[in-house]
Amino acid sequence: MPHIALDSDQPGIRGLLQYRPETGRPISDLAEVLLRGPSTLTRGERELIGAYVSDLNGCRYCTSSHAATAAAQLPGGLDVVGQVCADPVSAPVSAKLKALLAIAAAVSRSGRDVTEAGVAAARDAGATDLEIHDTVLIAAMFAMFNRYVDGLATIAPGDPAVYAAGAQRLVEHGYQLPS
Amino acid sequence: MPHIALDSDQPGIRGLLQYRPETGRPISDLAEVLLRGPSTLTRGERELIGAYVSDLNGCRYCTSSHAATAAAQLPGGLDVVGQVCADPVSAPVSAKLKALLAIAAAVSRSGRDVTEAGVAAARDAGATDLEIHDTVLIAAMFAMFNRYVDGLATIAPGDPAVYAAGAQRLVEHGYQLPS
Repeated sequence: MPHIALDSDQPGIRGLLQYRPETGRPISDLAEVLLRGPSTLTRGERELIGAYVSDLNGCRYCTSSHAATAAAQLPGGLDVVGQVCADPVSAPVSAKLKALLAIAAAVSRSGRDVTEAGVAAARDAGATDLEIHDTVLIAAMFAMFNRYVDGLATIAPGDPAVYAAGAQRLVEHGYQLPS
Repeated sequence: MPHIALDSDQPGIRGLLQYRPETGRPISDLAEVLLRGPSTLTRGERELIGAYVSDLNGCRYCTSSHAATAAAQLPGGLDVVGQVCADPVSAPVSAKLKALLAIAAAVSRSGRDVTEAGVAAARDAGATDLEIHDTVLIAAMFAMFNRYVDGLATIAPGDPAVYAAGAQRLVEHGYQLPS
């Protein structure tokens, strides 16, 4: 049961965005531009970084939600998401994405864990400054989402169909709240 | 030196918001509503939570910046901020704020560290659901800020006058980027 009365049965962050739309709106706007806006990283790759960080942070709702959303937009689907969460080094993703996932893992521990060597490895694998920036910010944004969702003990449904339906809605309509 | 070329000499998060205004705008909007918008927590109390979390996360730029901004809006000024960072339990702040700071510390470790007992203690000390919500989200937002600022190795000036001037600007003009 959530720590506070949310006046809705919406699970995870959805109940929170609805509870406090004044903060829900900029949070949704940030997710929209960072995960779906113009970028040389695909939407699937960006969702995969979010799912991976959420898994590292042990946030069940966000992991399930963003794994489903990544899977819906990635060749290889949920299998690849599972392989990345289990071991990004051996997972069937590009060398560039592996280097970015390593930066994301460092950020999820502490920003100070991102090293010159880690950034150089990403650059050697073809990552641009903007891709490195966005990876750091995606990992940092999920540090926020995961803590927000679990810090208020929101509901994480057990049924995978809930996340698949949510992913379909996100793929079609995006993150922005109706204004 | 920052990990990426920021095309400005702005320190900390300011250089990042300017580098990528598409993400800078919703980030600034979120800070504005959560730290300065209508609330039963004072602006000084909310900045104090941010400074405390930034100190726990070891982010020098954010700690200095939000300590100065809290001090400018709190009775007791920088002394009280220092006492809260050293030991919130014995610091000269209200019982309600101590209970909210304990929740913020839990969030900064992991959302799953927030307990029913911690939330009940805050409620017993007079905290409302919305104050508990906002405390969790402030701590989560600083989990993002601290990782963003340190993950890209932005500059943290050593001169306290820089932070005092930044605090004055924030108190007067707020967080929102010029549109």
